[in-house]
Amino acid sequence: MLVDRFLHTERSQYQRIDIFDTYRYGRVFALDGIIMTTDLDEFMYHEMLVHVPMFLHPNPKRVLIIGGGDGGSLREVLKHDTVEEAILCEIDPKVIEAARKYLNTSVEFDNPRAKIVNENGVEFVAKFKDSFDVIIVDSTDPTAGEGGHLFTEKFYQACYEALTENGVFSAETESPVLDPSWVKLAYKRIKKVFPVTRLYLGFMSSYPSGCWSYTFASKGADPVEDFDPQKVENFRKELKYYNSDVHKAAFALPNFVREIIRNL
Amino acid sequence: MLVDRFLHTERSQYQRIDIFDTYRYGRVFALDGIIMTTDLDEFMYHEMLVHVPMFLHPNPKRVLIIGGGDGGSLREVLKHDTVEEAILCEIDPKVIEAARKYLNTSVEFDNPRAKIVNENGVEFVAKFKDSFDVIIVDSTDPTAGEGGHLFTEKFYQACYEALTENGVFSAETESPVLDPSWVKLAYKRIKKVFPVTRLYLGFMSSYPSGCWSYTFASKGADPVEDFDPQKVENFRKELKYYNSDVHKAAFALPNFVREIIRNL
Repeated sequence: MLVDRFLHTERSQYQRIDIFDTYRYGRVFALDGIIMTTDLDEFMYHEMLVHVPMFLHPNPKRVLIIGGGDGGSLREVLKHDTVEEAILCEIDPKVIEAARKYLNTSVEFDNPRAKIVNENGVEFVAKFKDSFDVIIVDSTDPTAGEGGHLFTEKFYQACYEALTENGVFSAETESPVLDPSWVKLAYKRIKKVFPVTRLYLGFMSSYPSGCWSYTFASKGADPVEDFDPQKVENFRKELKYYNSDVHKAAFALPNFVREIIRNL
Repeated sequence: MLVDRFLHTERSQYQRIDIFDTYRYGRVFALDGIIMTTDLDEFMYHEMLVHVPMFLHPNPKRVLIIGGGDGGSLREVLKHDTVEEAILCEIDPKVIEAARKYLNTSVEFDNPRAKIVNENGVEFVAKFKDSFDVIIVDSTDPTAGEGGHLFTEKFYQACYEALTENGVFSAETESPVLDPSWVKLAYKRIKKVFPVTRLYLGFMSSYPSGCWSYTFASKGADPVEDFDPQKVENFRKELKYYNSDVHKAAFALPNFVREIIRNL
């Protein structure tokens, strides 16, 4: 990735924040040297992380995003008109500040349906019971900054309890090509907590290996069996990646990925 | 990609050939500086390029691979016991030599069902009429070496004519993320020649963007409608990527990819 110019660098309380422009990927936002978003492909990641659970819930009104300080997941959540309140719980206020100043993904920060809180996600979610229709974990890598806390069973259990009866959940769960042990660990821990747990995949060009995994979980709804493609066909907002065929296809796992989560 | 050590470099009549070892991707083979195979992920590319057309043909006996001098496509073709003869038409004998010496993908070069010829693919295929059950175009990039000739309408027309009545065809057709214009051009030209043309996608970590397109074409068989998953379930050879669910899912295109080939 060839860099054109550096725009911003700082060391916050939690991590190093960098923003720079590149020739082929446009503007890039990185935490602790790990790419979080690029103009070219952030839509791939955010649409897959957000719309898979959002379209599974019959009527998502209250949504919690943990992490996701760039705002891309918030933007996708708010495309759903049913949403009355979307809370973005980003631990680091400096990420919010930088995103607001430099990133297009922050476009919905001032939407009246959005609420931004700067708290530790693990502690924040533990305050709620039976409260959210959808929880989306848009974390950094488990090895970077505060990301590790968002890969613990304790955290997943708190998410389960904060969800309503029909609640659905998604989390980014790393690359099955380069970090299969993280995929396995996250999937296994989520599966211990939720009765329905399904791994799915999407392209994400600027992330290591370009092959990214997400884990869907719910208290009962199956992301393929209970999916209604008509809801997506009727959706009137612009989507650049996600569609009803992609939704179903994302759960078809190559053999080497099936192998990672076999017998868990 | 961090390089451990260089093993081989030469400038052949057609291109520069490099082979080196890396830390995370294992051994890498490159032509004109562009990665062709790595130990870590060559199976993703070769299985998707080869098995999609191979499982579509009712009884593939004669197969032609154009390019593919590393041998990975040949290895996958020969996993099908119906195959009586697989011709590998690699223009550059130096690639065959280097592959034989350094690459695991060359494992089937001496298989009695395999025949290696070093000829220009465009001229070679033009010698045949109604002759092959499957033709697989395993080319380098259109901008590198002799790759450009394998993206012309003239070449696709010759492939059509060299195929039998039930003949099926696949070609690698570049990255929809970074080179949409090449995807479009290849797809459009193939579609001008074949009555059935369908774009499909697969992960390919070491190729630019990690998102790779292939184009399936045939004289009648549809790769989704006419696909028999049972044939794959009964297949007894090891596959690390391809399975019947992946076959179908590969044809589900994200919106930005649908857009590239709309109205062609």
